[in-house]
Amino acid sequence: MTYTPATQDQLLAIRVNAGIEELAQSERFAAAEPDMVEAIVEGVGQFAAGEFAPLNRVGDLEGAKLENGVVRLPDGYAEAYAHYVEQGWNAIASPVEFGGQGLPFTLACNVLENLGTANMAFNLLPMLSVGAIEALEHHGSEELQQKYLPDLVSGKWSGTMNLTEPQAGSDVGALRTTAKPIAEGEHAGKFLIKGQKIYITWGEHELAENIIHLVLARLPDAPEGSRGISLFTVPKYHVKPDGSLGARNDLRCVSLEHKLGINASPTCVMSYGDNDECIGELVGAENRGLAAMFTMMNNARINVGNQGVQIGERATQQALDYAKERVQSARAGSPDKAPVSIIEHPDVRRMLLRMKALTEGARALLYYTAGQVDRGVLDDEAAKARGEVLTPLIKAWGTDIGIEVASLGIQVHGGMGFVEETGAAQHWRDSRIAPIYEGTNGIQAADLVTRKLGLDNGEALIGLTEEITRDCADYPALFALAGDCAAVAKWMREEASLDDKLAGSVPFCTMLSVAVAGWQLVHQLRAVEAGDAPALAATKPATVRFFLERIVPEASGLKAAATAGGAALYEIETAALLG
Amino acid sequence: MTYTPATQDQLLAIRVNAGIEELAQSERFAAAEPDMVEAIVEGVGQFAAGEFAPLNRVGDLEGAKLENGVVRLPDGYAEAYAHYVEQGWNAIASPVEFGGQGLPFTLACNVLENLGTANMAFNLLPMLSVGAIEALEHHGSEELQQKYLPDLVSGKWSGTMNLTEPQAGSDVGALRTTAKPIAEGEHAGKFLIKGQKIYITWGEHELAENIIHLVLARLPDAPEGSRGISLFTVPKYHVKPDGSLGARNDLRCVSLEHKLGINASPTCVMSYGDNDECIGELVGAENRGLAAMFTMMNNARINVGNQGVQIGERATQQALDYAKERVQSARAGSPDKAPVSIIEHPDVRRMLLRMKALTEGARALLYYTAGQVDRGVLDDEAAKARGEVLTPLIKAWGTDIGIEVASLGIQVHGGMGFVEETGAAQHWRDSRIAPIYEGTNGIQAADLVTRKLGLDNGEALIGLTEEITRDCADYPALFALAGDCAAVAKWMREEASLDDKLAGSVPFCTMLSVAVAGWQLVHQLRAVEAGDAPALAATKPATVRFFLERIVPEASGLKAAATAGGAALYEIETAALLG
Repeated sequence: MTYTPATQDQLLAIRVNAGIEELAQSERFAAAEPDMVEAIVEGVGQFAAGEFAPLNRVGDLEGAKLENGVVRLPDGYAEAYAHYVEQGWNAIASPVEFGGQGLPFTLACNVLENLGTANMAFNLLPMLSVGAIEALEHHGSEELQQKYLPDLVSGKWSGTMNLTEPQAGSDVGALRTTAKPIAEGEHAGKFLIKGQKIYITWGEHELAENIIHLVLARLPDAPEGSRGISLFTVPKYHVKPDGSLGARNDLRCVSLEHKLGINASPTCVMSYGDNDECIGELVGAENRGLAAMFTMMNNARINVGNQGVQIGERATQQALDYAKERVQSARAGSPDKAPVSIIEHPDVRRMLLRMKALTEGARALLYYTAGQVDRGVLDDEAAKARGEVLTPLIKAWGTDIGIEVASLGIQVHGGMGFVEETGAAQHWRDSRIAPIYEGTNGIQAADLVTRKLGLDNGEALIGLTEEITRDCADYPALFALAGDCAAVAKWMREEASLDDKLAGSVPFCTMLSVAVAGWQLVHQLRAVEAGDAPALAATKPATVRFFLERIVPEASGLKAAATAGGAALYEIETAALLG
Repeated sequence: MTYTPATQDQLLAIRVNAGIEELAQSERFAAAEPDMVEAIVEGVGQFAAGEFAPLNRVGDLEGAKLENGVVRLPDGYAEAYAHYVEQGWNAIASPVEFGGQGLPFTLACNVLENLGTANMAFNLLPMLSVGAIEALEHHGSEELQQKYLPDLVSGKWSGTMNLTEPQAGSDVGALRTTAKPIAEGEHAGKFLIKGQKIYITWGEHELAENIIHLVLARLPDAPEGSRGISLFTVPKYHVKPDGSLGARNDLRCVSLEHKLGINASPTCVMSYGDNDECIGELVGAENRGLAAMFTMMNNARINVGNQGVQIGERATQQALDYAKERVQSARAGSPDKAPVSIIEHPDVRRMLLRMKALTEGARALLYYTAGQVDRGVLDDEAAKARGEVLTPLIKAWGTDIGIEVASLGIQVHGGMGFVEETGAAQHWRDSRIAPIYEGTNGIQAADLVTRKLGLDNGEALIGLTEEITRDCADYPALFALAGDCAAVAKWMREEASLDDKLAGSVPFCTMLSVAVAGWQLVHQLRAVEAGDAPALAATKPATVRFFLERIVPEASGLKAAATAGGAALYEIETAALLG
């Protein structure tokens, strides 16, 4: 259950894949110079290991509990969160004018990576706040920004995202929560919010002094579906003009879900306006709420992919520890028959290297994506488009490998992996949510083969595969995979029906993710070979080799599934399928 | 949470893959004529759905509990087990002379498939008893057989397997439990057993009147390691000469493990001989216990693979149900924008078909394996060798697809899949043990590339791939995969070092499993096309096509990993790997 921050590998990815030094040459990100970057990565790693990690197990065992409308966390959570706020970790990438440090998104990802490796469930609290901050930063009026951003940026207050309703999951447009304009009185110009939301992460708790809920709702006479949705801020406590807290707003947590994992993260059913007195304020334009929500959702998707890296890192470290301690059987073929640590057995070592290679590959993809997003902020349009192509990749593949690595972690533990006390099982249970929330991985893949495939008339995606091909002629499996990706993309653009594309979307998403991750690992390898990261010189060449020689060819095996077409899926009529 | 027995697909697999009609032509299995087979498959399906399935959820929620040395199961378990015994389901494949029906192992597998699909945790009770019966049948003295087999065969008593100790898991040879001969007195000729065993499935409970523990232990002065292990029967209650129960033996359940899943199955820490009065009797020859244990283990491995089929079937049915009921979004590209059941969306349908194709493929492999085992009993040496090659395949791949299908089942449920109340998460948690117990999947793969690869001078395994190649020239992906398997096998036989083989063992095991499963599905397809199973005519062609066109090519993608060699795994020194 020990945990050592992966500081060196993070620094390498931030330098090589995000290109932080180039970013720091811009005026906007000038503060991100090497000393600052190192101080942040090392500092937050130590903080997370020291204060968040020790709470991971108790958070799983005791979980969040709802008692008389109040959500209770295990002892220690409130103190750790207070220290997190005090030390300023919440404010890394937020605007300077609201108390933030204005640093690149890349570094905010690193803060979340460290916190989430230590404690995935706890990390959701800061992670959701980031989303609320971004929505207000980009779409809120100056008044709303002044009112909410300083305390959200510091972390004194937290934020939530309220999209889902029982009948409106992936189909957000089906939501029914209403917002009625208030014409006169104290709250004139504001809105009465009424409705029930589900799956609200950290929707209620007492770690922050106030909770600012960002709620999607419909105005009267709004158009049907997704074009009739508006975004509102709905605070738990009203905020007075002087910034102090007023009365409680008319909203409450009705219940918590009993979940498979992330038990320390309260997943709330929230009720707004039971007494018809729930007050909210409009964010952005009327009926443009979904667009505003997507601003925050895009970066949130990257940070869900980040959770795959987090679980991967944690599970790998735990499995390595166990494999070192556990002595069992002699090495096959050894003359002396002396039992050895299981880390010496070939198949255990294969599992451990696979865990390490997948985690490092996902980390390389994560920071490459984050770096492109940061370039997009600097008005580099090509990087912005690339960031958009990469976002579904890191979200979907990152979370898929999170599960795979956690499952391998259980397998390395043998029977002890199935017993809850080792903690290996917790990682696997926790990991399972990430392919579902912030848009299921199926929705990510659909986004990839529809919107993202069409960006810049196809150039954004196909150009990416061509760049890999040009850069990696010396790595035959990767060269072949990039070619396979290009061929699939071309087929999807030129020949495939919409059903064909969707039918092949998930395998294609995996193929392209592995190709980009492999490519970014090659960049890391070149840097290490050039002496750029001596601390990794003994391990990186082997993990990259493992990735390129074993994982990359597997992804090429998905080409047939990616191009098999949609018709075969409907060969069985629905009634016959149901039996 | 509904469950309908997969009777038609089971009957097809029993006819086509196990070849039951040919088996019934032997004197030994003459009773297995078509009416009898149908009566068993239909009857046990209905029994399992009616009596075991309703207890699955409560078993997960309440689990087995240890109270003052007694293991309590939730209400209903005792009654359901009593009905199971009354109806004679336990006695299907056991020898007629001890009250069994003497039917093929194939049909015993079917009984377990149905019980386990209904309730995986509960099914472990009969499943472990089968192992005890087989060990006594093949290795017990006539006296031991007369004493224990009638009541084990009926199910009045249950059996357990006691191998593992804290320091002796995969390395059974490291066990320390002792057996001391008793020279005189009432128990002369018997042994005093002393030691602690862990992970004893259904090691203590009150559903059966007695529990016959099969315990591995060391005699004084036994050789070190696995060649110094003997097998003993150790009853919970002593059995008097007239067959009635006597005093309690000196053994007890010390504690239950808190596990990730199969909560209704008590996983016991057992202590034998706390008061130095634990009496056991030797089964088979001194120091030959491991060989005797492997008799029961081989068939147990097939039935652990069976658990993958079980979880796959249950998870698929549940996901289909949910996908039918859940209405969300219009079909992409549809003109009318009307929301549809999610079963109509291409990627959801892809997931459902994948679940169905994997489950049916594993079922085809399961019954093909069982049929070969039955032919082995009839002294068909080629079939016996083939059964030995197939056993690690169904154990490893069957259990791997069990997890994959259960995970897809969660994904089809979206957010509801992560909430425990739907039950989708339980299937996934339950599934995770199967790749671990009865020899981890890594051990299965090692067995495949060492012992099984060498059987009949390589012909047993390579002959299998050649038979697939000859039979499936019309199915290009399968033809190619069988060729890939042959090439890997040839490389392993002729060029690879032991480390190379072990390093590629798991990917090779998957490749060969998919090839054999695909081949057996082709046999099913031909039968269905010939009009052999009208009830499956609307679905089987599409699931087989899905398997051949999408899943088979993926397996070819593993060839590089299977032949990548062992050296790269040790390129990082252990100390550097540990960081």
